[in-house]
Amino acid sequence: MNRIEVEKKVLNENQILAEQLRERYRQLGVLCINLISAPGSGKTALLERTLERMDKGSRVAVLTGDLQTENDAKRLAKFGFPVKQITTGGTCHLDAKMIGKHLEDWKLEDLDLLIVENVGNLVCPSSYDLGEDAKIVLLSTSEGEDKPLKYPSIFLKSELMLLTKIDLLPYVPFNADVARENARRVHPQMEIIDVSSTTGEGLDRWMEWLRARQERAKAKLQTVTVPH
Amino acid sequence: MNRIEVEKKVLNENQILAEQLRERYRQLGVLCINLISAPGSGKTALLERTLERMDKGSRVAVLTGDLQTENDAKRLAKFGFPVKQITTGGTCHLDAKMIGKHLEDWKLEDLDLLIVENVGNLVCPSSYDLGEDAKIVLLSTSEGEDKPLKYPSIFLKSELMLLTKIDLLPYVPFNADVARENARRVHPQMEIIDVSSTTGEGLDRWMEWLRARQERAKAKLQTVTVPH
Repeated sequence: MNRIEVEKKVLNENQILAEQLRERYRQLGVLCINLISAPGSGKTALLERTLERMDKGSRVAVLTGDLQTENDAKRLAKFGFPVKQITTGGTCHLDAKMIGKHLEDWKLEDLDLLIVENVGNLVCPSSYDLGEDAKIVLLSTSEGEDKPLKYPSIFLKSELMLLTKIDLLPYVPFNADVARENARRVHPQMEIIDVSSTTGEGLDRWMEWLRARQERAKAKLQTVTVPH
Repeated sequence: MNRIEVEKKVLNENQILAEQLRERYRQLGVLCINLISAPGSGKTALLERTLERMDKGSRVAVLTGDLQTENDAKRLAKFGFPVKQITTGGTCHLDAKMIGKHLEDWKLEDLDLLIVENVGNLVCPSSYDLGEDAKIVLLSTSEGEDKPLKYPSIFLKSELMLLTKIDLLPYVPFNADVARENARRVHPQMEIIDVSSTTGEGLDRWMEWLRARQERAKAKLQTVTVPH
């Protein structure tokens, strides 16, 4: 078996597990989102601000991936919601098997929202379906405007782009209009929200997006369970 | 053949080609460096400032890798030195075969310095030897201080870390001392230079590092060719 055949086999196996996860989420009305970005684009900072804004009774949990360290899980556990670190060793992405394994001792029926924070990498995570309802890509103003063109796959597959660190705009050579234009060249229908985890700008819009998306997951659940 | 066996085979094949490249560089006294970082850490901006500072007659060339677009090659070609884009399609790293192929119509004996700018990714490029004399990792102040702990492999394998975007320090929640400490926890002997491609801070030190490293490559060459 050559390399491409092995890759296809691995991706097929992953797809089967991902579909099983997706079906479980659908049956229970859980919204699962998969946050993807380069290292340091602000996924964990955004999640800190997100969990901070949630009502104490919110049924939310986080799985956070990294090659090494439990740092992100420690940062996120402070908010009182269930958080688990997935340490991949050297692997450059999360896969559906890792997600399934780390969900084993959680009761999915107790959740409304499962947030997955992928390994910091704009390339590999885009090939691995985790059964999520939506991929969300983060691009920070300290990166370059041409990232959507250089890494088109993840921008094409994401439902929403969060333009992060918007507070740094005065200090960086970054043209936000060009970045948005490039993102829409790759994915014309993609929603874009500008946010700053430092100043709080745009976080209301992001929380509103999350709420609306959760309602859609719940609405689907009712469509499924009401007899015709 | 399972996935791990295929990965080993691919890495072994890469290693053979990398050693052949390394031997060619050694015989000709060419210094080859391999720049690795997350997307948007400032590899291309650093190379713009580097090429700008080179004497017109410098025997330097650049191979720049990306999944898609010729953007970086266009940015770098302005300085009058040979530049070629390597577009990997979906592949998350450069490999020795790509380097060999793109060097085919260049005369290596006309070069003193070959700069390889890898795909923006802190994970995959660390596994692929390109025959370079030194890997150099860039970490920007707009990322997090814990990146060396989260992505230890590339920090361990790099001879030098460039702490980029040092001009942004007043505007970002980044502790440079902690970042350096984390880098040295992973790799105690690693050299670290703070740089800013915007203000020019630290670029003299970086150019000096490059010059000293080129002299070492030339000195090795003399050791080889002088008869005993």
